[in-house]
Amino acid sequence: MGMVGGGRGAFIGAVHRMAAGIDSQIELVCGALHVDPDEAVLSGQDLYLKPERIYRTYNEMFDKESQLPEDERMDFVSIVTPNHVHFEPAKLALENGFHVVCEKPLSFSLDEALQLQRLVNDTGLVFALTHTYTGYPMIKQAREMFKSGVFGKIRKVVVEYPQGWLSTPLEKTGHQQATWRTDPMRSGKSGSVGDIGTHAENLAETITGLRITELSADVSTFVENRLLDDDANVLLRFNNGAKGVLHCSQICAGEENPINIRIYGEKGSIQWHQHDPNTMYVKWLERPMEVYRTGTSYMGEAAAAHTRVPAGHPEGYLEAFANIYRNFSKVVQARLAGVEPDPQFLDFPTVEEGVRGMKFIDAVIASGKNNAAWTKIE
Amino acid sequence: MGMVGGGRGAFIGAVHRMAAGIDSQIELVCGALHVDPDEAVLSGQDLYLKPERIYRTYNEMFDKESQLPEDERMDFVSIVTPNHVHFEPAKLALENGFHVVCEKPLSFSLDEALQLQRLVNDTGLVFALTHTYTGYPMIKQAREMFKSGVFGKIRKVVVEYPQGWLSTPLEKTGHQQATWRTDPMRSGKSGSVGDIGTHAENLAETITGLRITELSADVSTFVENRLLDDDANVLLRFNNGAKGVLHCSQICAGEENPINIRIYGEKGSIQWHQHDPNTMYVKWLERPMEVYRTGTSYMGEAAAAHTRVPAGHPEGYLEAFANIYRNFSKVVQARLAGVEPDPQFLDFPTVEEGVRGMKFIDAVIASGKNNAAWTKIE
Amino acid sequence: MGMVGGGRGAFIGAVHRMAAGIDSQIELVCGALHVDPDEAVLSGQDLYLKPERIYRTYNEMFDKESQLPEDERMDFVSIVTPNHVHFEPAKLALENGFHVVCEKPLSFSLDEALQLQRLVNDTGLVFALTHTYTGYPMIKQAREMFKSGVFGKIRKVVVEYPQGWLSTPLEKTGHQQATWRTDPMRSGKSGSVGDIGTHAENLAETITGLRITELSADVSTFVENRLLDDDANVLLRFNNGAKGVLHCSQICAGEENPINIRIYGEKGSIQWHQHDPNTMYVKWLERPMEVYRTGTSYMGEAAAAHTRVPAGHPEGYLEAFANIYRNFSKVVQARLAGVEPDPQFLDFPTVEEGVRGMKFIDAVIASGKNNAAWTKIE
Amino acid sequence: MGMVGGGRGAFIGAVHRMAAGIDSQIELVCGALHVDPDEAVLSGQDLYLKPERIYRTYNEMFDKESQLPEDERMDFVSIVTPNHVHFEPAKLALENGFHVVCEKPLSFSLDEALQLQRLVNDTGLVFALTHTYTGYPMIKQAREMFKSGVFGKIRKVVVEYPQGWLSTPLEKTGHQQATWRTDPMRSGKSGSVGDIGTHAENLAETITGLRITELSADVSTFVENRLLDDDANVLLRFNNGAKGVLHCSQICAGEENPINIRIYGEKGSIQWHQHDPNTMYVKWLERPMEVYRTGTSYMGEAAAAHTRVPAGHPEGYLEAFANIYRNFSKVVQARLAGVEPDPQFLDFPTVEEGVRGMKFIDAVIASGKNNAAWTKIE
Repeated sequence: MGMVGGGRGAFIGAVHRMAAGIDSQIELVCGALHVDPDEAVLSGQDLYLKPERIYRTYNEMFDKESQLPEDERMDFVSIVTPNHVHFEPAKLALENGFHVVCEKPLSFSLDEALQLQRLVNDTGLVFALTHTYTGYPMIKQAREMFKSGVFGKIRKVVVEYPQGWLSTPLEKTGHQQATWRTDPMRSGKSGSVGDIGTHAENLAETITGLRITELSADVSTFVENRLLDDDANVLLRFNNGAKGVLHCSQICAGEENPINIRIYGEKGSIQWHQHDPNTMYVKWLERPMEVYRTGTSYMGEAAAAHTRVPAGHPEGYLEAFANIYRNFSKVVQARLAGVEPDPQFLDFPTVEEGVRGMKFIDAVIASGKNNAAWTKIE
Repeated sequence: MGMVGGGRGAFIGAVHRMAAGIDSQIELVCGALHVDPDEAVLSGQDLYLKPERIYRTYNEMFDKESQLPEDERMDFVSIVTPNHVHFEPAKLALENGFHVVCEKPLSFSLDEALQLQRLVNDTGLVFALTHTYTGYPMIKQAREMFKSGVFGKIRKVVVEYPQGWLSTPLEKTGHQQATWRTDPMRSGKSGSVGDIGTHAENLAETITGLRITELSADVSTFVENRLLDDDANVLLRFNNGAKGVLHCSQICAGEENPINIRIYGEKGSIQWHQHDPNTMYVKWLERPMEVYRTGTSYMGEAAAAHTRVPAGHPEGYLEAFANIYRNFSKVVQARLAGVEPDPQFLDFPTVEEGVRGMKFIDAVIASGKNNAAWTKIE
Repeated sequence: MGMVGGGRGAFIGAVHRMAAGIDSQIELVCGALHVDPDEAVLSGQDLYLKPERIYRTYNEMFDKESQLPEDERMDFVSIVTPNHVHFEPAKLALENGFHVVCEKPLSFSLDEALQLQRLVNDTGLVFALTHTYTGYPMIKQAREMFKSGVFGKIRKVVVEYPQGWLSTPLEKTGHQQATWRTDPMRSGKSGSVGDIGTHAENLAETITGLRITELSADVSTFVENRLLDDDANVLLRFNNGAKGVLHCSQICAGEENPINIRIYGEKGSIQWHQHDPNTMYVKWLERPMEVYRTGTSYMGEAAAAHTRVPAGHPEGYLEAFANIYRNFSKVVQARLAGVEPDPQFLDFPTVEEGVRGMKFIDAVIASGKNNAAWTKIE
Repeated sequence: MGMVGGGRGAFIGAVHRMAAGIDSQIELVCGALHVDPDEAVLSGQDLYLKPERIYRTYNEMFDKESQLPEDERMDFVSIVTPNHVHFEPAKLALENGFHVVCEKPLSFSLDEALQLQRLVNDTGLVFALTHTYTGYPMIKQAREMFKSGVFGKIRKVVVEYPQGWLSTPLEKTGHQQATWRTDPMRSGKSGSVGDIGTHAENLAETITGLRITELSADVSTFVENRLLDDDANVLLRFNNGAKGVLHCSQICAGEENPINIRIYGEKGSIQWHQHDPNTMYVKWLERPMEVYRTGTSYMGEAAAAHTRVPAGHPEGYLEAFANIYRNFSKVVQARLAGVEPDPQFLDFPTVEEGVRGMKFIDAVIASGKNNAAWTKIE
């Protein structure tokens, strides 16, 4: 794989590399790792890349790599830059025939997202979007269980993502992650909603298989002089008549990174907390709550296929992330081998989820600007 | 004390009696315990009341008790009937000079509530509303801590009360609690919002000291043919600029009775779950979360005054309930003795909270009927 | 009921009175509430006892009460004094024909315990020992489930009771609870083992129905100059071949009052923490863990009979305590009425458990003095 | 790295490879992956090893690799075989100048362990033992805090490792992991104690810095016809006067893999559960319990150095494992570069811990055979 971004000072790039490394399927062979060409070179040296494959810009990378013999060039590119630098490298990658792993949200604007969607469809290339949380095995289990009908029709969804790290004007201190995430020129039209609200939306729609049809969002900026939202409370309506609540925040003082979900069907419900991702609480009408655990004999096929160690050996965020890379790379390998991929690996977020996320952002921000008026998605 | 309602087949009446019994301050001396006069008599016999003080109707009770010598008559009455039978006995009690403990919500309609409020103010009698959850010592602690300013300005409140017991049409089975709670003629204009949403509202306003100024409510009835709401998702705005989410439900399959609250200030936050009421999670920006526990040396004065046993000896719902009765009875005792009550006992929900709750119900239901339009409270 | 001890400065007496008050079955009518006769009088006034039934000594109380007409005298006595004042008042009570509730451990020495046992057997009077923790409904449920055989043969028991309140030499500060509990003249031959180790032993034997046959105990005193043990680690062997660990402590800094138990059978196991007494974790070999909760529809008969409020309304220590009083008083009522008690009420710890506890203390202390040599219990 | 064992049918080999892969520092270049030479070849092919570096036996591997030029041969070997095949390959590796990562327990017998210890000392080669649990960042934090004296002198340690997977005679079903672990010819003189008891011992001694001086162990085999112990309850005495309890089991029906520890000092205590490894409960005498979390700003240097993602992004077992590999590989790299390693990387279990573990096993088994007589460790 090649990488765009993720060099010195970055956070998520290293996460991608660790996730890609776990299963020994993927090797970083080249990169344009920093917006500053000199930093890009130093960053490449940090990672022991071969000098000739440390690129100063992604344009250079796509250009040079395309010219390498097929079995020498990178198989795919991983784009781990801030939001405003997703579209261009992704577009270039696709136009140059490279498969793509891209950070979320998919792009800076819905328009860009739709262009990428068309390009993916036209080229037939493999495209993965790193909505990490749906990579957890327990989320696969939840999805399977709701699909099976064991909980009956879904009535209510409560999904929340309260962070506290932007409770103070951290962006004024030069903190790199805070700075771009609160900058409309780099993050897009939304702060908290784009950064974490989309994860919540993706988690809810992935598990339930439902679609949010309209929403009413009270969007706030609590920290003075901050340019983007740092909090949103959203009422949801789903295409099957279910109702829901989604709230996300960066000003919930003292919270770390707890993305949590509860989904209530007619006959039972589930509750999952990322804090303890290998556990799911399954509640029933007239029976004791059951506590599902990954790595056990009673887990379903999809969960089992995304679990690496036995029950009681906790797996975490990197392993969830690695599940996306593993599945993506298996599909890419099949593609390179000219065979059909094993369907079990066709289980990672794609450009479709990316477009969906951009529509969600647009709807939330529009509703927020309109005093939380009901706003349709699509 | 005398009691209206709470006889055979009732639930909350027995709870009131246990709560009143814990501190050996209060004795049940008379009652009109059932809407059916014969059942009222049998219920009185069940409780070993003296035959002459088992009344067939509350009218009879107020009439007869008023005629007893002052030191023989009941000191106050406890009204534990369904919502539509709060107003009349409360009014009669006040008019006959009896102090009142009344179940929530205060009344069937806001108009009734306002009448009771005037009557309480005019008579100067003591009136307690059993919003039990604010009787927990940890809620006193939370209230004290927010008041102290240690968390800074409040930014966000998330309060939830998801029950699951009405996931099926239980009212069709003759279940007494379900039947009246889903009947507009007995419950009032709301089901879930009146029954439990008001507890959530009361909890949020009590701890924060803030007032909800407007709300946007998506109110639903999920169980077919049910006549009242069984679910509501509500966006909140507070008088200091804070935002919030309140959701309550009776169709959250598998949930018992978890009223939970999280309140976020600029510098820290608290989290409390009724499931484990003696524990409060206190989170800070750059320090480890602290876990406050009742009965410990570091608890504040108000919490300590409402705790009966040392740390690690769990107290529960009945003890919270008993705190209301204890405080109320201490104030009544002072009143009977013609002295000022110790201010520490002036700590229980009153008719004011009752009026507030009725306004909340009205606003939620109005908003719900208007597609969740923002609706002001007062 | 009458009470011996429990006046000014006492802790557990008030707990007894609250527990006795919850179900409105029991009224405190007289007492000899303090070892100092003047304090005894003041304590009786605090509790609004009739002056003529405030006694200066328990001898006086038994003497005077026996002379009252049968329907006026107290029905039973509650003994809530330090350990060295259990035997005499209990003996006097039984000799004077009064039923007895007694604090644990039963007595100062095994010899006293055996005398009381004989006396109870000879008189046929009702005797309850307040091993509170087995009063919790969930403990009844656990006992029923093990009896049913659903978990197979029991293999291992881990029971623990780590407190931290005596981590410092609190007895040097004049702290009343600490002082007598660390004084061999008042507490007996053991500190932590008698005070809380016996609760752990009682809990284990009650749930499993097994008997500890021998034990190996490492008994320690960590706080300098303390005269009794403040920590014990004990290996257990049971009469069915099961093994176990029991550890109790008063120097586990930071611990409150967590008595916890895990019991492992061939096919499954349970885990219970007093911290959250309404919950029991039930684990199986190849199925998800189940979380049992009091007040639910699936709880067994015994648990249901000892639960006062619906699921999700937490019950605590006082309610567990009240279960002992309720059952005891129902049996006493039957006895007074000359009828057989309902067998469901014959469910409280008796003098037998008291004797058992004294034998346990003797064995642990003997083993401890003998470098943890295996020591048989009876 | 080269690998001995870990081929088809193995469990821990894959874990080693994933752990080694996370930080992109280590590449598997050769292996003798199975005791059956043909399976060894197939296993090597599974992992895409170069054919010439797939070895049929570890003898062949050490022989051939030693003959390769220094910059081509493997830098170290990872030994992931059952216990009876640790000593020989480790010895050969050391004798041939290869650094070693070895699974625990170090060897089949204490004698072997002592030989390896001498060999490591004589050769000066780097040797890591994969006591994974001490690789968790929170364990580093606990160790640092106890070392700092903030908790005062340690008084009591409770460490437990109750598994349930061998509750039935799983070894009779041909289950590979169960079979060798219950076979004295492959596992050594102990089953549960060697497999998991040593982890508990290592965890306790690592955090506290104390040494167990003597122990009293009740060692059991509950499953009929099993040849090795499947349960042990152990009393501990430490070199500073602290006491402790260690219990480990493979027959705790329903338990997964919960290694847990509580350590009590004079002024405070910690509690850690592997289930939620990023959390540590820190309790104090008169202050609220604090909940420490990895990835936060208040964590100490050692914990921070072993954490890969921010607070709230759970890290798990593989990451703890990877910490051993990362540190080991950094030290090996320094050695290969002829420089002193950064002292922060000298933080992984070595042959010393391995010898200590073998002595622990010997003492527990000896005590167990002698009716739990106190038995000294060295």
